[in-house]
Amino acid sequence: MTRFRHLISIDDLSKDDILYILDKAEEFEEIARGKTKSRTLEGKLLANLFFEPSTRTRMSFEAAMKRLGGDVINMTAQEASSVAKGETLADTIRVVGKYADAIVLRHPLEGAARFAAEHSEVPVINAGDGAGQHPTQTLLDLYTIRKESSLDELKIALMGDLKYSRTVHSLIKALTLFDAEIYLVSPPSLALPEEFLEGIGGKITTAELDEILEEIDVLYVTRIQKERFPDEEEYRKVAGSYKVDAETLKRAKDSLIVMHPLPRVDEIDVSVDATKHAKYFQQAFYGVPVRMAILSEVML
Amino acid sequence: MTRFRHLISIDDLSKDDILYILDKAEEFEEIARGKTKSRTLEGKLLANLFFEPSTRTRMSFEAAMKRLGGDVINMTAQEASSVAKGETLADTIRVVGKYADAIVLRHPLEGAARFAAEHSEVPVINAGDGAGQHPTQTLLDLYTIRKESSLDELKIALMGDLKYSRTVHSLIKALTLFDAEIYLVSPPSLALPEEFLEGIGGKITTAELDEILEEIDVLYVTRIQKERFPDEEEYRKVAGSYKVDAETLKRAKDSLIVMHPLPRVDEIDVSVDATKHAKYFQQAFYGVPVRMAILSEVML
Amino acid sequence: MTRFRHLISIDDLSKDDILYILDKAEEFEEIARGKTKSRTLEGKLLANLFFEPSTRTRMSFEAAMKRLGGDVINMTAQEASSVAKGETLADTIRVVGKYADAIVLRHPLEGAARFAAEHSEVPVINAGDGAGQHPTQTLLDLYTIRKESSLDELKIALMGDLKYSRTVHSLIKALTLFDAEIYLVSPPSLALPEEFLEGIGGKITTAELDEILEEIDVLYVTRIQKERFPDEEEYRKVAGSYKVDAETLKRAKDSLIVMHPLPRVDEIDVSVDATKHAKYFQQAFYGVPVRMAILSEVML
Repeated sequence: MTRFRHLISIDDLSKDDILYILDKAEEFEEIARGKTKSRTLEGKLLANLFFEPSTRTRMSFEAAMKRLGGDVINMTAQEASSVAKGETLADTIRVVGKYADAIVLRHPLEGAARFAAEHSEVPVINAGDGAGQHPTQTLLDLYTIRKESSLDELKIALMGDLKYSRTVHSLIKALTLFDAEIYLVSPPSLALPEEFLEGIGGKITTAELDEILEEIDVLYVTRIQKERFPDEEEYRKVAGSYKVDAETLKRAKDSLIVMHPLPRVDEIDVSVDATKHAKYFQQAFYGVPVRMAILSEVML
Repeated sequence: MTRFRHLISIDDLSKDDILYILDKAEEFEEIARGKTKSRTLEGKLLANLFFEPSTRTRMSFEAAMKRLGGDVINMTAQEASSVAKGETLADTIRVVGKYADAIVLRHPLEGAARFAAEHSEVPVINAGDGAGQHPTQTLLDLYTIRKESSLDELKIALMGDLKYSRTVHSLIKALTLFDAEIYLVSPPSLALPEEFLEGIGGKITTAELDEILEEIDVLYVTRIQKERFPDEEEYRKVAGSYKVDAETLKRAKDSLIVMHPLPRVDEIDVSVDATKHAKYFQQAFYGVPVRMAILSEVML
Repeated sequence: MTRFRHLISIDDLSKDDILYILDKAEEFEEIARGKTKSRTLEGKLLANLFFEPSTRTRMSFEAAMKRLGGDVINMTAQEASSVAKGETLADTIRVVGKYADAIVLRHPLEGAARFAAEHSEVPVINAGDGAGQHPTQTLLDLYTIRKESSLDELKIALMGDLKYSRTVHSLIKALTLFDAEIYLVSPPSLALPEEFLEGIGGKITTAELDEILEEIDVLYVTRIQKERFPDEEEYRKVAGSYKVDAETLKRAKDSLIVMHPLPRVDEIDVSVDATKHAKYFQQAFYGVPVRMAILSEVML
């Protein structure tokens, strides 16, 4: 009956599956806001297994579950590391699957979520596995675009670290399903890997923000991490060129929305917060109804 | 409709506001004891953001919320410290406010709670901000006095560290609203700062415990911390003079109550525990109905 | 009305008490599986006080409580250690007993649970106190045997570390109540202490696994810990002789069940997992209905 048992990678979902989740999330918005009560998942238990900390993702799943009347048992990163010493991931998954109706897994190793799903008696939701996938982030990104802009005839710029950002890679793949025009804005050293591009096709162009700012509907900013650079000065020079502030946005369309997976450091200046373009906090909120849709899909 | 949106400092409340909260807490006592079920806050979510550990305060808020049928998402001190590295307090507050209906904040820096409230879309309750405020502690202290003694014509001695104790400072301010007679009992090096006294008026006298023990209704003991003294011997000498045991209390009124914000080290001897004077564990319990009153005030 | 107020040691329970708990657990199985909803413990609060980490035990209690509609407040090992510095266990227990209806205590010191019970206003359930007791583990072991094999005319081999394993000691005592035939299979250096045997009587024999494998109904394997050996080579040699794999079990009865308190390292080879003998994950699950029975016994 359900469209998927586990949620491991955005690549496992068809465009139709994605739209189905987004539609479902829509129905949960009022509950996510705490305006309407729900007991949909009463008696259900979710286990959060976080082998590395990701406070925001954990809290968002926890809010989704609890607002739906379900409950959560958490294994913290600290506990997980001591568990990890004593036992294989397969065993942990099998035991926790005896306590809970589904498992949200965050793990530092790529492929861990798919491996876990293969050993699990209960549904596994991937909440990030190293350089791998983080499909609920992609779904909330798509939901945000659909709610605050449009997935049809979308022109979107992805700016910042396009080389290492798991978030960006998954989003690009999903956006090609919607035939979006994608502009890549990054320092050369953090450009999207060519191998990545070869595999997917789609309308993807490299650009400078200046050239396209008046055209785009969405500006999706990601963080440029200091650790990617050999020295601090180089970092500062590069990062400084990929920042937006209220001034920058003056030339943008009125309807342009600015997104960011958060946390931001200073790639989006606080002057943007008060503009109508700022949607990154709203985007964080949309994680709740989207995760509600996923949880109720795998648990009911 | 509600009397306050955020609860940052006891100074923001009038005597009337305080009495309103204490009356409301009274109605929650049976629920706090687990004798009566309540679903008052069903569907509501509280976020506990503890940037420093305070297990008792956190558990007390959590008990209050859960006994009322609501639920809680915790950010532990360990998680908070890693969050703090990556993002401003303002951003954390804005994101967490997207997940929960109210935030309880514990932070090491004075002023953090008021700052958070200014950036928050949801109510913020201060659970201690450094040398600043801890208003729910003051409210539960007042509630304890009213329940176990009386706020009218009160004679109270505050003993121990009066210089650094945030708890004592807030309580003195609140007690002046009730026209209490306050005796200050402390080593000279830990006396209440004169500047503090200038600002508030009220019937406040310095005293030795001996002189007033037969007069007072409440003896509020606080801990003298070793870290306040240049050497251990000096500490032991001073701390030794500000202890109470069952023997000490023999000269006290029958109705005298002994309070302490806990944890105690040895400033109240365990021999006091079995006496009718001991109310410090009861005081810990009263934190639950008082926090229930506050939570339902800001969330409903 | 209830059969016990606290649950500190399996020795405090009669055979009749044990059967009563096992029967009660039976009624909770469907709820433990999430197949049936329950609000039996609605409005009730359990405090998990874990002075050392034991993620599985904590999660199992938490699942039990939440599936019954109750809720949990956790004090993590990290928090507990900072609490422990500031305050006596007696004080912690008294304060937490003001917030919750019962306390599950895990503590590194033998005797801590009984001490806590003496100072507690609410029921205390021992979740392991050092070399002492872990009675809910014994109860779930008995439940597993009864469900997957039989407690009548039972022939059971206990294999591995019989010297230090708290789990094994408690289980032996409980099994003598059921008149089981017990075979002890261990390296000489990890044999069951003779003093232990003197105290209890019962049909207990030392054996090699080979000699009895065709006779036994249950093979209960425990981990041999590297720390028990003066050098790694000695450890590897000894541990290597006390392992089971699918091949080993070919000579066993069809109905033989293999149990393990988990986590396992490699004393049970993964080849056993797919055999009909493997019941150790099922055993982990049975912890939930058994703990439901105990929680509802002490809380209602």
